[in-house]
Amino acid sequence: MILDPDRDLELTRLVSASPAQIWRCWTDPALLRRWWAPQPVETVEAVIELRPGGRFFTRMLHDGRSFPVEGTFLEIVPQERLVLTDALTAGWRPAPEPFFTAILTLAPEAGQTRYTARVLHRDAAQQRRHAEMGFHSGWGTALTQLEALAATL
Amino acid sequence: MILDPDRDLELTRLVSASPAQIWRCWTDPALLRRWWAPQPVETVEAVIELRPGGRFFTRMLHDGRSFPVEGTFLEIVPQERLVLTDALTAGWRPAPEPFFTAILTLAPEAGQTRYTARVLHRDAAQQRRHAEMGFHSGWGTALTQLEALAATL
Repeated sequence: MILDPDRDLELTRLVSASPAQIWRCWTDPALLRRWWAPQPVETVEAVIELRPGGRFFTRMLHDGRSFPVEGTFLEIVPQERLVLTDALTAGWRPAPEPFFTAILTLAPEAGQTRYTARVLHRDAAQQRRHAEMGFHSGWGTALTQLEALAATL
Repeated sequence: MILDPDRDLELTRLVSASPAQIWRCWTDPALLRRWWAPQPVETVEAVIELRPGGRFFTRMLHDGRSFPVEGTFLEIVPQERLVLTDALTAGWRPAPEPFFTAILTLAPEAGQTRYTARVLHRDAAQQRRHAEMGFHSGWGTALTQLEALAATL
């Protein structure tokens, strides 16, 4: 799918870990908690039901404030592609405050892994809002944390 | 999944047609146009890309006004289960005005087919809005039209 520059945000990087290691970091809740939030934000809860329509839940803690994200998985191709959204909750119910769909793709490249996270929004205003919330630095810092963790697996 | 009486609406009926016939009426756009809108409303366009993330689009015409619905498929189990939503559009982008997820199930029963359409909403207010828009009479009339069409296939 072609990037929509008005409504999408994308982070792509060559990562020094295998697709299998990165996949584990994304799909094992104990591992997800260790890299998902950019420090000093903490991920204090993570629930992963890895099937289409299964629950994806995280709760982050920052300065004593709680940031829950409730969503569901849309596509699961192990070690290649993972799609999740907060526009629907587990069992496909429309969500009260839909914001994003994230499409993660992993591909071997020159002995490393090409990691691409594309985030889709409903319109340009939502894209700008996400950019201003710090999408690039937030997802970038988290990816650096993921890379360090994946290398230890 | 258990019906949530505060947020879901459901229509269920024994239909005198086979699951295969009903499935064709739902998934062939030329057939869908013939039963989807309760008369005198007309379905003037229908696009069906029958895969998860594929486009589901209909446009109805009533008293000269146009009513488009843009959505996507979530689950497809031929002749058994079809799930679609307008909370996401084709390719999984969050939709501007999410309203419903529809879960259609078909099961053979006593030589006929048990047809169940459950519609999920994000909250009780949206459920009431859909009920007041005439969910039961609208979907009921459309189902009667579907039954008549399916019997001719």
